Amino acid sequence: MSKKFLSAALALAMGAGYSLTAVSQAKPEVLVKQRQSAMTLQGKYFGPLGGMLKGAVPYDANVVARNAGYLEVLSKMPWDGFAESTKGAQNTRALPAIWTDAAKFKQSQEQFQSAVAALVAASKSGDEAKVKAAIGEVGKNCGSCHDNFREK
Amino acid sequence: MSKKFLSAALALAMGAGYSLTAVSQAKPEVLVKQRQSAMTLQGKYFGPLGGMLKGAVPYDANVVARNAGYLEVLSKMPWDGFAESTKGAQNTRALPAIWTDAAKFKQSQEQFQSAVAALVAASKSGDEAKVKAAIGEVGKNCGSCHDNFREK
Repeated sequence: MSKKFLSAALALAMGAGYSLTAVSQAKPEVLVKQRQSAMTLQGKYFGPLGGMLKGAVPYDANVVARNAGYLEVLSKMPWDGFAESTKGAQNTRALPAIWTDAAKFKQSQEQFQSAVAALVAASKSGDEAKVKAAIGEVGKNCGSCHDNFREK
Repeated sequence: MSKKFLSAALALAMGAGYSLTAVSQAKPEVLVKQRQSAMTLQGKYFGPLGGMLKGAVPYDANVVARNAGYLEVLSKMPWDGFAESTKGAQNTRALPAIWTDAAKFKQSQEQFQSAVAALVAASKSGDEAKVKAAIGEVGKNCGSCHDNFREK
């Protein structure tokens, strides 16, 4: 494939603003959009699991296993989007505590990731009670981090 | 954890519109937002690889391996968001061909997923030339699918 074709393909594929993220600091609005995208997808794949725990959705071990696997990857994605450059950015509910209490924010990320890893492990156990407890722990971590670091 | 606490945590975690996606058809605007989020993250993690291929970003095998793994999961996420209910939705560049030529759209998804899987395999080979060829193939698939199914 020619370099010319590739450049065109990349431009088509990604639109403005993405191709230079590794060579220059991404723009704050791009970082905000990317981190919000990761949160949106966490919501997409956690939502049905929360529904199963509440009894609003029939329990389905295959969906739990699939979504838990997706969440394990997604749980790694938002955090580099909370760069200092995004302080004061528009269209975000991120609270200043993200930067003024960075250690606690980091700890919350790690606890969330641990809870998701525990859900992945539980989803392989075939033990529905264990799976539901693990779903509850993930939900608790989502909620407490939002409580502390996201505008009401 | 009490059901009451969990409901509150879920509401906090997800905001309106997510918790019922598995029991009722998600709203078109939610589906559009979710599929665009998956595309945004594909851009985030493919961007640097495209930069490496073009020589704009220093080659880094670890970044390639990590991003390829993320892309493998992300390549599965957008497609169920192109539900019939989203035809004519606002704020999307999705073309009608997605629904009028559904077989070709499905084939494009599968070719893209194959190209990403090949990139994952190449990233484990330690062969930079092979990795770069695989990055090119992924970019080509992004571009051709956007050519056919996304408004210019």
